[in-house]
Amino acid sequence: MEMEKKIKAGDVRAASRLIRNIEDNVPEAKATIKHIFHYTGNAQVVGITGSPGAGKSTIVDGLIEASRKRDKTVGVLAVDPTSPFTGGATLGDRIRMQRHAEDPGVFIRSLATRGSLGGLSKAVGDAIHVMDAMGKDIILVETVGTGQQEVEIINHAHTVLVVLVPGMGDEIQALKAGIMEIADIFVVNKADREGAGKLQRELMIMLDMSPIPPEGWRPPILTIGNSFKPEEFERDIEKLSNNIYQHYDHLVSSNLIGDRLRRRTMHELNEALRSSILEPVLNILVSTGELDRMVEKLLKKETDPCSLSEEVARKYLQGCI
Amino acid sequence: MEMEKKIKAGDVRAASRLIRNIEDNVPEAKATIKHIFHYTGNAQVVGITGSPGAGKSTIVDGLIEASRKRDKTVGVLAVDPTSPFTGGATLGDRIRMQRHAEDPGVFIRSLATRGSLGGLSKAVGDAIHVMDAMGKDIILVETVGTGQQEVEIINHAHTVLVVLVPGMGDEIQALKAGIMEIADIFVVNKADREGAGKLQRELMIMLDMSPIPPEGWRPPILTIGNSFKPEEFERDIEKLSNNIYQHYDHLVSSNLIGDRLRRRTMHELNEALRSSILEPVLNILVSTGELDRMVEKLLKKETDPCSLSEEVARKYLQGCI
Repeated sequence: MEMEKKIKAGDVRAASRLIRNIEDNVPEAKATIKHIFHYTGNAQVVGITGSPGAGKSTIVDGLIEASRKRDKTVGVLAVDPTSPFTGGATLGDRIRMQRHAEDPGVFIRSLATRGSLGGLSKAVGDAIHVMDAMGKDIILVETVGTGQQEVEIINHAHTVLVVLVPGMGDEIQALKAGIMEIADIFVVNKADREGAGKLQRELMIMLDMSPIPPEGWRPPILTIGNSFKPEEFERDIEKLSNNIYQHYDHLVSSNLIGDRLRRRTMHELNEALRSSILEPVLNILVSTGELDRMVEKLLKKETDPCSLSEEVARKYLQGCI
Repeated sequence: MEMEKKIKAGDVRAASRLIRNIEDNVPEAKATIKHIFHYTGNAQVVGITGSPGAGKSTIVDGLIEASRKRDKTVGVLAVDPTSPFTGGATLGDRIRMQRHAEDPGVFIRSLATRGSLGGLSKAVGDAIHVMDAMGKDIILVETVGTGQQEVEIINHAHTVLVVLVPGMGDEIQALKAGIMEIADIFVVNKADREGAGKLQRELMIMLDMSPIPPEGWRPPILTIGNSFKPEEFERDIEKLSNNIYQHYDHLVSSNLIGDRLRRRTMHELNEALRSSILEPVLNILVSTGELDRMVEKLLKKETDPCSLSEEVARKYLQGCI
């Protein structure tokens, strides 16, 4: 059976191999990705972001459970920075999630941020397509950090959760990182901790200050209690899960889903263009040794990067400069 | 006088205007940047990164003071995420730094992360060149967050400071974010807080585990005490400042500076190529309405992003596909 058919049939091994090839930027992956594009567009993609230690993995774990109770199939994509210290994608707090490994309705994979950010964003988009084509109903994408990378999740997701915890700096963090604007749902995790009320109030004030259009969605602020009190935790997660599905319904009923799809498509096209236009030029510069010669010239200050790259453009571009 | 001469003479108004134009991607800035490239390469560039609320601005403020005492001129570049909630680059904790505004030996500017990350990295590099061409001896680049953006500072800096604070998640943060590898100096800020000793020990263990080559530099772990105790704070900052200058001396004496310069140049060339090769194609696709038509086709699933962008490449690239 062809690769894309296997993916469509939900074949876990084929999907895993394809995602690994996407991560490693293996050229053969391209053809399959082209074909599976036609099978995509059915899943609800949920981005879960927040600072490290905010408890995102625990929440993802809870959401898997809650979605399975509704008979939804689930894809989980954990986007991890790679560090030689930790060995990258395998993190202790993800072990808990592995209890779903036996459930055929759950497919969990991680992507390391090895390449450039541009490349990563493309890989995230492609990996989401794989899970979408597999027929997963909901895809949970967990990203770490507060930088541009997290803000980029909005280019892939229908619904963005921003997870905060009470304590030093989190309030500032939300403000500073520009993630306030991308949140569809705020989650105050570890809400039994000191400062949870303060954090909620601050979020509320900020939402009051921000204009919400008539057909808009005011991001709810939900709390998650102690994960060591299973009943309480489950009740909170259930509520969060409801809100996630409600947000999708809102996108559909208000027709806002069209805007999100358009933004996502535009972003994907941009990434694909970068890959098709810039990479062939870079490849030829590298393979001919021209790039090294250019670097030498620059180190000697014989010329500047801008003049050099304009020369390259004159050589390899046609009809647009 | 021409713009580049003004910059070289240290003209603050000319430099500020140029940096604003770099940030806004104004085409006229290009010619000036080309010219000032020849005047660059004399400053020590120091990246200061760490999570929001870690106290980076206070440390930068202290380092300005310490460098001025050594009669070094200082450039400060604060790389800020833009948020409509905060109005972006003007943050409360940066007010303190403004006391240096009257000192002609200090030049402080901020850059907002409005554009794409690629674009930002180019803007950061160009703004550093401006301060370098102005003749600043040391350039302090403060970045926020723990994402790819922070790791990218290594492409611009000779010396990277990673600022951590004791308390929940910071240890994990350092591990997860891949910033361990880029640190030349670790700074444990607010070292009078509970958990500072634990954090230091954990860092030390991680350094013990990581191989350091013979000519290598083992990143020192420095502590900064309470900034409300001026004497203690000043003493700690003085020590940090010494280590920063020692690191540069080490780079020079061990010849490692060549590697850093090469990496920085390679990165800059990459950014310049992206700008010269990809942007003209995108511009023509946008101005002819072709990009919109492509998005429509994708939304209807008539084709996929990869096939479309390969078509574009066949049209506009020559001699490399």
